[in-house]
Amino acid sequence: MPKLPKKSDFPVSQVRRYLEPGPIVLVSSKWQGATNIMTLGWHTILEFSPSLVGLMISGGNHSHRMIRESRECVINLPTTSLTDTVVGIGNTSGGEIDKFAKFNLTAEDASKVDAPLIGECHASFECRLHNDALVEKYNFFIFEVVKAHVAASPKHPETLHYTGDGVFVVSGKIISRRSLFRPEML
Amino acid sequence: MPKLPKKSDFPVSQVRRYLEPGPIVLVSSKWQGATNIMTLGWHTILEFSPSLVGLMISGGNHSHRMIRESRECVINLPTTSLTDTVVGIGNTSGGEIDKFAKFNLTAEDASKVDAPLIGECHASFECRLHNDALVEKYNFFIFEVVKAHVAASPKHPETLHYTGDGVFVVSGKIISRRSLFRPEML
Repeated sequence: MPKLPKKSDFPVSQVRRYLEPGPIVLVSSKWQGATNIMTLGWHTILEFSPSLVGLMISGGNHSHRMIRESRECVINLPTTSLTDTVVGIGNTSGGEIDKFAKFNLTAEDASKVDAPLIGECHASFECRLHNDALVEKYNFFIFEVVKAHVAASPKHPETLHYTGDGVFVVSGKIISRRSLFRPEML
Repeated sequence: MPKLPKKSDFPVSQVRRYLEPGPIVLVSSKWQGATNIMTLGWHTILEFSPSLVGLMISGGNHSHRMIRESRECVINLPTTSLTDTVVGIGNTSGGEIDKFAKFNLTAEDASKVDAPLIGECHASFECRLHNDALVEKYNFFIFEVVKAHVAASPKHPETLHYTGDGVFVVSGKIISRRSLFRPEML
């Protein structure tokens, strides 16, 4: 189990830095005194400012109702040191177990929501429900990131990207094409 | 410039295999006789069957109106051999240039939509607009993938994942945790 990375405030308008590459995330929630965590790969950035993120949270997940009722969650970014934890969380239900206890994870207080941060993750993004127009039909929640916490190191954490069938692609080498971008596109 | 990968039919219910990891994609369109291509990183899988994908296509893109009016597009998956093309497409406007010509790309006929496939890409997913409820407010389009074409090799193409600021993370090593999954979770 990794140590708890020291995280600092990060601009909410720049969370695309961590979410746009498409990593698997751990979504934590709290409702009626209980916490929960789910593994999620179906998400997209929607806007820089306000900082909007869309999450498809299937109705079959115990987290669905907790997040729908509490209108909050935290999106946490795990790295490869948490691979087996990510799989374990995705293969169990919060209706049956306490996932923080079962997976030996540290629930830290968030600053703007009641849902806990996961201390072991590289980054945590506190979210409030912004629009639920497509929740009934598609389980699609639009959240506003209201506070972001990111570890300064490593600069490029090794993230997990799910392909289905139990197989993950890990983030690899970094390539910059900054010099080819028009300034307003950066 | 890469050769044209030989693509075969692929089950539309399994396109998450290529899109869930979060790669940059090239979205091709056709409207009123003109074609266009845009670079896009803000997308998510929404459902297996029907095969639904959500795309945030900013109103500032020339493609936005073409796709909104034609109610179709093709999502194409480029690999690292197309990195400079991806950047070039993202930094130019289809209002000013013909992107297929400018970037020397091959427009191939799709089978179920009028928008062209990009021959040089590893995979192409033909899409029809499924729901536009959030287009006006969030530029968020929900498409149904109606036909998928995927190259058999390489099994794990080297894809580009954008972090902003001109920097991409490339897909790297593959890790399987298949044995840890409950069968119904695969």
